[in-house]
Amino acid sequence: MLTRIDHIGIACRDLEATVDFYSRTYGFEVFHTEVNQEQGVREAMLRINGTDDGGSSYLQLLEPIRDDSAVAKWLAKNGEGVHHIAFGTADVDGDAAAIRDKGVRVLYDEPRRGSMDSRITFLHPKDCHGVLTELVTSAEAQGEPH
Amino acid sequence: MLTRIDHIGIACRDLEATVDFYSRTYGFEVFHTEVNQEQGVREAMLRINGTDDGGSSYLQLLEPIRDDSAVAKWLAKNGEGVHHIAFGTADVDGDAAAIRDKGVRVLYDEPRRGSMDSRITFLHPKDCHGVLTELVTSAEAQGEPH
Repeated sequence: MLTRIDHIGIACRDLEATVDFYSRTYGFEVFHTEVNQEQGVREAMLRINGTDDGGSSYLQLLEPIRDDSAVAKWLAKNGEGVHHIAFGTADVDGDAAAIRDKGVRVLYDEPRRGSMDSRITFLHPKDCHGVLTELVTSAEAQGEPH
Repeated sequence: MLTRIDHIGIACRDLEATVDFYSRTYGFEVFHTEVNQEQGVREAMLRINGTDDGGSSYLQLLEPIRDDSAVAKWLAKNGEGVHHIAFGTADVDGDAAAIRDKGVRVLYDEPRRGSMDSRITFLHPKDCHGVLTELVTSAEAQGEPH
């Protein structure tokens, strides 16, 4: 069951400049940074608020580190902007399976590692009215009963 | 001060079909519907979670009702997808003024009426790394001290 907006993924060309914009303009602070070699990005998570399922909502700023990464290709086509949205769940495996059974294409056979040791998968945007949609189980929630 | 992700605004061509997708796929329910003649849209708000500032996070599904509305033009150019993101604040007037002072273009001289009697304004996407950004004070928060 999807219980929160976990994050909004925003593609940018210069991570430091974009972090600086969000900090200077709104006062948002960097909660976490990492490089995800598999996704071909480096990223900054800005925590915006807590949520009533015990999680948080973030902005995820993404800069490609390789020209052949999905985010690099997306940026070349679309320019900077919102790349995907992500919903939080305690059970990404179960939710992904149930959603696949409804005919929506799930992009990974098994969830992969996302930000902050979360487990994630993506749904095909053409099956989601144009929205690249991610499902996330946070590291904290991975030990919880669903 | 911006204290939550208030909503993600998603442009669609057929509101009923898109509501049906979100309901069938994820179990999200319609919290509110309305027509905003000024914005030239009809919309459905799907409430996803509560937030620790006492507000909520929503998906806002938007279908244009006029070919000359901003959302209709955006759809013609981009197709269905994420149209804007919105941050919640108890003081949209004060925050908009402070952000304007930092050199970011604010699209309205004064906040206007948004969903569910909120007061809203928008920031120019070219000043926000490609993200059309809305600031929202909910109806409930309009009577509160900031």
